[in-house]
Amino acid sequence: MKIAIIGSGLIGQSWAMIFAGAGHTVTLYDIVSEQVSKALETIATNLKNYESQGCLRGQLTASRQVSLITGSSDMQECLNGASYVQECVPESVDLKRQVFNQMDMYITEDMIVASSSSCLGVSQFVGEMKNKHRTLVAHPVNPPYFVPLVEIVPGPWTLPEVSQQTRTLLESVGQAPVTLSKECPGFALNRIQYSIINECWCMYKDGLLSAADIDKLMVNGLGPRYAFIGPLETMHLNADGIVDYCKRYAQGAYNVSSTLTPPPIMYDIPTAENVQSELSSAVPLEQLLERRKWRDRHLAALASLKNQLKEKKD
Amino acid sequence: MKIAIIGSGLIGQSWAMIFAGAGHTVTLYDIVSEQVSKALETIATNLKNYESQGCLRGQLTASRQVSLITGSSDMQECLNGASYVQECVPESVDLKRQVFNQMDMYITEDMIVASSSSCLGVSQFVGEMKNKHRTLVAHPVNPPYFVPLVEIVPGPWTLPEVSQQTRTLLESVGQAPVTLSKECPGFALNRIQYSIINECWCMYKDGLLSAADIDKLMVNGLGPRYAFIGPLETMHLNADGIVDYCKRYAQGAYNVSSTLTPPPIMYDIPTAENVQSELSSAVPLEQLLERRKWRDRHLAALASLKNQLKEKKD
Repeated sequence: MKIAIIGSGLIGQSWAMIFAGAGHTVTLYDIVSEQVSKALETIATNLKNYESQGCLRGQLTASRQVSLITGSSDMQECLNGASYVQECVPESVDLKRQVFNQMDMYITEDMIVASSSSCLGVSQFVGEMKNKHRTLVAHPVNPPYFVPLVEIVPGPWTLPEVSQQTRTLLESVGQAPVTLSKECPGFALNRIQYSIINECWCMYKDGLLSAADIDKLMVNGLGPRYAFIGPLETMHLNADGIVDYCKRYAQGAYNVSSTLTPPPIMYDIPTAENVQSELSSAVPLEQLLERRKWRDRHLAALASLKNQLKEKKD
Repeated sequence: MKIAIIGSGLIGQSWAMIFAGAGHTVTLYDIVSEQVSKALETIATNLKNYESQGCLRGQLTASRQVSLITGSSDMQECLNGASYVQECVPESVDLKRQVFNQMDMYITEDMIVASSSSCLGVSQFVGEMKNKHRTLVAHPVNPPYFVPLVEIVPGPWTLPEVSQQTRTLLESVGQAPVTLSKECPGFALNRIQYSIINECWCMYKDGLLSAADIDKLMVNGLGPRYAFIGPLETMHLNADGIVDYCKRYAQGAYNVSSTLTPPPIMYDIPTAENVQSELSSAVPLEQLLERRKWRDRHLAALASLKNQLKEKKD
């Protein structure tokens, strides 16, 4: 299957590696051919590093995977014969509208065009397209190579089989797609993430915990559980099923929830400066890049552990 | 150091294993001596299983750890010479008041008495005590042997050094304590957990995602990150520091947050029944016990991975 990736930044590169890892032919497009060449070099380096670190995806060697990915600065050539297109241009509604309109004339009846948008629904930029019924959002999580979740968000015109086929394709390449029934602000992932940040922010401002202890609470308390079990199953397991959980704990949860600071909340700069001065003792600004690599190594190790545990079960 | 554990249920057993793992002498108390004997047997079986599975804590053999734990149904004997007492009786304010008042006469000036309470602050049950300044909450997370977080929650009378010494002790036995500045509803962990559940519940009721996809979203999206990096550091890393994050994303987060359903929310039985019928296709009620063991095996594997990665760094 041929996959077209539109946009050769970090997210575009990740998608290219994911699809090539599953054995698909990938064409990576960007408007400037030098950017494409540079992206291909980065991909080759990454895949070889992953291979030597033992965290390369799929059954093919790194060099075989590299050979599956070619570049293009010609959109028609990139889309020609592609079954699936993943757009990864910057998060600007005007830019996305322009790119989708440009793609419109090359979209065929068996092609799916997905946007990697993290907050814009396709309804905001595909309205003028002839082929808008073949577009949707497939929003990955950073870093997509090691964090498999993808949010599939159909627009108002998206055909049901386009959502379904996208889900099947993404599952087949090792991602973990979830399907929203409709567009909504923040999709699902950021609605949960902002709920978490909002409460953490309020607790910090209220002087209840230090910034380090708030992060420690998640990393050593809720985080390990959520790496394996979601919030609903946690309720299910912490009682004799989730109905029993509600009978026993809903009133208590209600009492606590009624004291949560209600949104909306705006993260403010003075508070952010206080948090930053606390966080910087462990992760100074000049070490952010190094720390991101640390994060990715840990996520790779966890992904590999999860695969091992899964195989053990099978 | 001698540790006294008051209450021989699952949490009491976990604390006993944690302290014995670090080489401390433990006396496990319960009002009925048969319960104590049964708990000691369970502990011995667990520690031997952990040893054979390679997830035993500490440097001592399982049988040496077992020999450090003795039982008692005499409270005075249990507390005599103890430096630290961890109360683990059921979550009832009357029962806790009764137990703490009973302990009061045996508390010495170098003893700390911590409650495992998950939602009651000590202010609710130690008010009549002479030694209330030596009491506080040390709330563990289930299962404490594999999830190291402990919330330290001082009451209004708790001496600062009592909080500090508790934190130092719990760190020394391999737990990950965080310190709240004061009592508050839900402490910190459940304030975050309920924020998550509230939003998941609303999205489910709104028909936005299936129950399975909500859990999948956490397990494959946010959860892996939170196993290593907290919410504040996530913001710090996802931009050039958290101040930059706020400048770039606070407005967008505000826009999404203003559409979050405001608490209070009451988890309702009809919705719980729908969720349960969905969850039961993967985890039927009769398999909850087995699934809890699955969860604990995975948490043990993750704990061991995190230790390996830490040692690698050191």
